[in-house]
Amino acid sequence: MSSDGATGDTKARIMDAVRVALAKHGYADLTTKKVAAEADVSEAGIFYHYDSKDELVAAFVEWCAEGTSTRFDDLPDDPTDRLYAACDVLLVAEDDPQAAGVSVAFMELLSHAPYDETLQGPLRRYEEFVLGELADVVRAGVESGAFRDVDPEATAAFLLAACDGVTGFGLALDMTEANAHVRERLRAYLDTVVVADP
Amino acid sequence: MSSDGATGDTKARIMDAVRVALAKHGYADLTTKKVAAEADVSEAGIFYHYDSKDELVAAFVEWCAEGTSTRFDDLPDDPTDRLYAACDVLLVAEDDPQAAGVSVAFMELLSHAPYDETLQGPLRRYEEFVLGELADVVRAGVESGAFRDVDPEATAAFLLAACDGVTGFGLALDMTEANAHVRERLRAYLDTVVVADP
Repeated sequence: MSSDGATGDTKARIMDAVRVALAKHGYADLTTKKVAAEADVSEAGIFYHYDSKDELVAAFVEWCAEGTSTRFDDLPDDPTDRLYAACDVLLVAEDDPQAAGVSVAFMELLSHAPYDETLQGPLRRYEEFVLGELADVVRAGVESGAFRDVDPEATAAFLLAACDGVTGFGLALDMTEANAHVRERLRAYLDTVVVADP
Repeated sequence: MSSDGATGDTKARIMDAVRVALAKHGYADLTTKKVAAEADVSEAGIFYHYDSKDELVAAFVEWCAEGTSTRFDDLPDDPTDRLYAACDVLLVAEDDPQAAGVSVAFMELLSHAPYDETLQGPLRRYEEFVLGELADVVRAGVESGAFRDVDPEATAAFLLAACDGVTGFGLALDMTEANAHVRERLRAYLDTVVVADP
């Protein structure tokens, strides 16, 4: 019933349960009952904080943005190391089934965005936030002279597309060779197109 | 009840109805009833050819592969024009809401692949087919000397990831500037990394 959602430890516990349940079941088959079971709380306990499955998932997307923000804050200072590490934040490793499951579920959430106003806002804020953070990383590298004179926003969009685009064939379909190819070509892109010659 | 599915004109009519209905409603809210309404046939008429919604959608994915195959067959012969045109086949224009809707629905189908064996096979064959076609385009350019000595499979995977990856933020969330950025950077990638200097 609360429109503010849960806070503190309760929130962390519920959000972590959403993460695990989304990775396991996807969004379509996610239920508040499954999240309650993962969090080891009653379903009423979930509904006390979130009015619906979509409000719960929207809160989860905002929570992911906070987590990604923290990971960007922790990136190394050196512009080149920072760029590589930023792409590692966005490129999910196939040997991390939990993270891969969340990535696939995020792709599912995105596919619902045109029809679901509750999810649309948080998802757009999430994508805009990531694009902005990535553009800042590129801009800092350009301004310091460590990178070529590339357009920070356009480069960020291209890098995010390449990272997001591997989720379908690389993770959902588990095409491991193609997944490895994208990672290798992305690294080559950073080396040859973005980072300046020494 | 037929396991062969519909053929000829009936098939084309039903598949086109799936395309329109998927673009309009997405996969989760797709029903055989909605497809029947779009095709202007009875729901029993759909079930005569396809046992379930998922069989119908799996047939649609195979049908899309045939359509993409035809579009690849029709590409220009010149290696560089061929590569640009191949990427245009894969990059959906935001000013084509019908095609954008199908792309977003494909992303949704991919997100169900880990849980849905009926969809998994056709989707994997589709992605492998597209990767193979794209790699052939790159390989022909490399062998003719029109392209640099890039790895055809790795380059194809990277290009497909960039094209697929714009579906989420560019189409489902309608972030038009970021969408344009990806298209512009992709073109620059083809020009500077793949195509040889004149």
